[in-house]
Amino acid sequence: MPDYTDLKALLLNCSIKYDASQSHTRRLLARSAGIMASQGVDVELLHVLDHEIAFGMVKDATEDGSRARDDWPAIQRKIMDADILVLGTPIWLGMKASVAMLVIERMYAYSGDRNEKGQYLYYGKTAGSVVTGNEDGVKACSMELLYAMAHIGYTIPPQPDCGWIGEAGPGPSYGDVIEGRDMPIGYDNDFTFKNCTIMSWNLMHTARRLKDAGGLPTTGNRADHWSEDVNARDQDPERTTF
Amino acid sequence: MPDYTDLKALLLNCSIKYDASQSHTRRLLARSAGIMASQGVDVELLHVLDHEIAFGMVKDATEDGSRARDDWPAIQRKIMDADILVLGTPIWLGMKASVAMLVIERMYAYSGDRNEKGQYLYYGKTAGSVVTGNEDGVKACSMELLYAMAHIGYTIPPQPDCGWIGEAGPGPSYGDVIEGRDMPIGYDNDFTFKNCTIMSWNLMHTARRLKDAGGLPTTGNRADHWSEDVNARDQDPERTTF
Amino acid sequence: MPDYTDLKALLLNCSIKYDASQSHTRRLLARSAGIMASQGVDVELLHVLDHEIAFGMVKDATEDGSRARDDWPAIQRKIMDADILVLGTPIWLGMKASVAMLVIERMYAYSGDRNEKGQYLYYGKTAGSVVTGNEDGVKACSMELLYAMAHIGYTIPPQPDCGWIGEAGPGPSYGDVIEGRDMPIGYDNDFTFKNCTIMSWNLMHTARRLKDAGGLPTTGNRADHWSEDVNARDQDPERTTF
Amino acid sequence: MPDYTDLKALLLNCSIKYDASQSHTRRLLARSAGIMASQGVDVELLHVLDHEIAFGMVKDATEDGSRARDDWPAIQRKIMDADILVLGTPIWLGMKASVAMLVIERMYAYSGDRNEKGQYLYYGKTAGSVVTGNEDGVKACSMELLYAMAHIGYTIPPQPDCGWIGEAGPGPSYGDVIEGRDMPIGYDNDFTFKNCTIMSWNLMHTARRLKDAGGLPTTGNRADHWSEDVNARDQDPERTTF
Repeated sequence: MPDYTDLKALLLNCSIKYDASQSHTRRLLARSAGIMASQGVDVELLHVLDHEIAFGMVKDATEDGSRARDDWPAIQRKIMDADILVLGTPIWLGMKASVAMLVIERMYAYSGDRNEKGQYLYYGKTAGSVVTGNEDGVKACSMELLYAMAHIGYTIPPQPDCGWIGEAGPGPSYGDVIEGRDMPIGYDNDFTFKNCTIMSWNLMHTARRLKDAGGLPTTGNRADHWSEDVNARDQDPERTTF
Repeated sequence: MPDYTDLKALLLNCSIKYDASQSHTRRLLARSAGIMASQGVDVELLHVLDHEIAFGMVKDATEDGSRARDDWPAIQRKIMDADILVLGTPIWLGMKASVAMLVIERMYAYSGDRNEKGQYLYYGKTAGSVVTGNEDGVKACSMELLYAMAHIGYTIPPQPDCGWIGEAGPGPSYGDVIEGRDMPIGYDNDFTFKNCTIMSWNLMHTARRLKDAGGLPTTGNRADHWSEDVNARDQDPERTTF
Repeated sequence: MPDYTDLKALLLNCSIKYDASQSHTRRLLARSAGIMASQGVDVELLHVLDHEIAFGMVKDATEDGSRARDDWPAIQRKIMDADILVLGTPIWLGMKASVAMLVIERMYAYSGDRNEKGQYLYYGKTAGSVVTGNEDGVKACSMELLYAMAHIGYTIPPQPDCGWIGEAGPGPSYGDVIEGRDMPIGYDNDFTFKNCTIMSWNLMHTARRLKDAGGLPTTGNRADHWSEDVNARDQDPERTTF
Repeated sequence: MPDYTDLKALLLNCSIKYDASQSHTRRLLARSAGIMASQGVDVELLHVLDHEIAFGMVKDATEDGSRARDDWPAIQRKIMDADILVLGTPIWLGMKASVAMLVIERMYAYSGDRNEKGQYLYYGKTAGSVVTGNEDGVKACSMELLYAMAHIGYTIPPQPDCGWIGEAGPGPSYGDVIEGRDMPIGYDNDFTFKNCTIMSWNLMHTARRLKDAGGLPTTGNRADHWSEDVNARDQDPERTTF
């Protein structure tokens, strides 16, 4: 059994509610956080709207004077310190929340940076996603969150997302207590538990290996030196047999 | 430098053209295939419409008698033999091709199967995507292809996709020869070369490690035994500090 | 109350099952068809896989000899005869079915054609979508179907889609009969009934008006003559006050 | 030729730049606005980040005390006054901007309201979308914007979107002035001009008709009374012939 006690995980709750205690997504994030904490991972669950984040494709909006305050740089430092990142979003109209896109935009503003090996900044880290809503949209949201993270350098493990939604139509959200129901809504959903479990463990397994290996080898993937290795330009696009 | 000569890669061209030689996507797939072949990977580039594939969420459409012929099972065997899978699709109306979805459906029909460790069937493999069009849609298509593969068990490496599209509007496709232009269309696009290079190498790096490690550890991710490990059901969804 | 008896509606079931009777999506399509038929609309519900449709961005695959048989042109004639088109798709892995994309591709192959006014071919018609699955994806599928139809010239009425999905996880599909349940699955879902009702009526209302008005006026939207009217090229992109 | 002088159009620029003058999307929005203004439409082009908008599924964030300031209600009044709404967004990582989703969320918060006929609030209005980026994503963004608007009651005309993107890879954005190029980037793109022209005119045509007709007839689409008309619940889901 590998040791996970040197790993750090950051879970960002991209709820659009200012009051963290009102977020349903937080509850499923807490389950994933709990699994990782049980293995000794240093876990932080952060409610993005507890902070004041500027809009813009900028690293720090106070530097160009566009805003007097911007809490993003502190969050970015936490992201850079973490081996594992989990983005959590509610679903509205089948889509990920504005706050989730705000987080992606701000992370993307740093994506031109390089790690010490010359790879994109987020190489060597792994990411997953948690999505909840009252109905419809888990996969559509996860798809965008995970693609964005892979695009900037994260490794995506197998079965990297989990979520809960109810049957088509308005209705309660994850963890709501409804009269006449034994249990808070969704707390008897084994599919959600299973996916949350698999995601959380696969994030730890993948982070463990990436950390032990010191990230990815550098051949062919250094952002500014890719053409020094065997590369696509030199291949024959008409070749049909291999 | 790791040795990649024991790896197998399968590239599936999901063009909607029956004649493989007319496919533009094939050209970018060939570049990725070329990189991998240069490292001794056993590479196959397969044109899906050279085969007759049945529709349906079935493993073999001849078994239930719905079709007299179904070439899918032979392709599925190639997929299972390969360490690396690359799905290539053209873009139509901003979306991935019907043939790409057909491939996903047929792979998904096997997803209830388990590997020898009790994990979902495609664990221990890695996948990427190649997308071309005359304009608009690389990311929207990649997102769906990669999400589908991650969902059924593939590991997705950093920067797992590449593509080429031209400026907004009708126009030539990847590799088209246009009078007055020095070079076939897109063959001077460094961004496409770079992404194709990074994707191809990261697939090899990731496949190498997965193969060396014998896939993923089994804690928490066995499809039918996830609840025997520390799991989401047992965590406190109201926990706020970790 | 307007008269709808001169309208025609075509509902295309893009199930991936060859046997129409096994399709769950058909059941919700039948409800929409029923509403329209009750108002005297000439309705046809067609199961796409009852036909043999070629792949390709071609009007008729037998013309270039790529296929010996292609049933598409007959379906295209029905589409052109209909005032209302409803595309129905099941959800697989959160995405629309391959058959739905095949239909879009084949319709798109005619999109360069013009109507008698010089507008794109599908002007003056209206479209909606019906989506079912056991869980997750109605909006993601509808979004693609409706966008594709709007893009080629259909008018999209308010609330143009309906669907049914169950709670997160595997489970029964629309209309499945389950022991211990009073009613087939989803047949007590008012949200699905409401959306199906609104969609069906709004399609009729919109088709009625488009037909009465002879489609859309031609100013500014003739495919090959748009620049003869006041147009975007002649506007000042730096203008800030209006 | 219809008279459009009694129509109002609101164009919301969902750029993530605080300084409107730095937005590229604004330039294409201005072209659409110009076309409509030339016909006497009362046009307003509003830069969303000139205002301070709260997050949340709330009508006015000052009412529950979650924020001291919330400029949304004033924007909502403009939306309700307008016959035509155009949402403009830049593309980041292939996706619509956070600000665009923020706008959708805030509009959605009012969607439970009814118009004077008992239909959803936004009935009788029409919407389009304008998307720009340096590369890739126009359709993916438009799809989400238009679906959201249709879902809450807007009618979507044929060819309801336009955009500009360059060839795959980093590069200039719409209207950028580049040394050695005759013209600002994209200002020679006829496809973009054509789509912007068609969209703008079709919005006017559609708004004209909706206004003249007093919105949509009410049969079957009153939010709380749909079941008083012929409806989906009463149809036979097993009916196969019509």
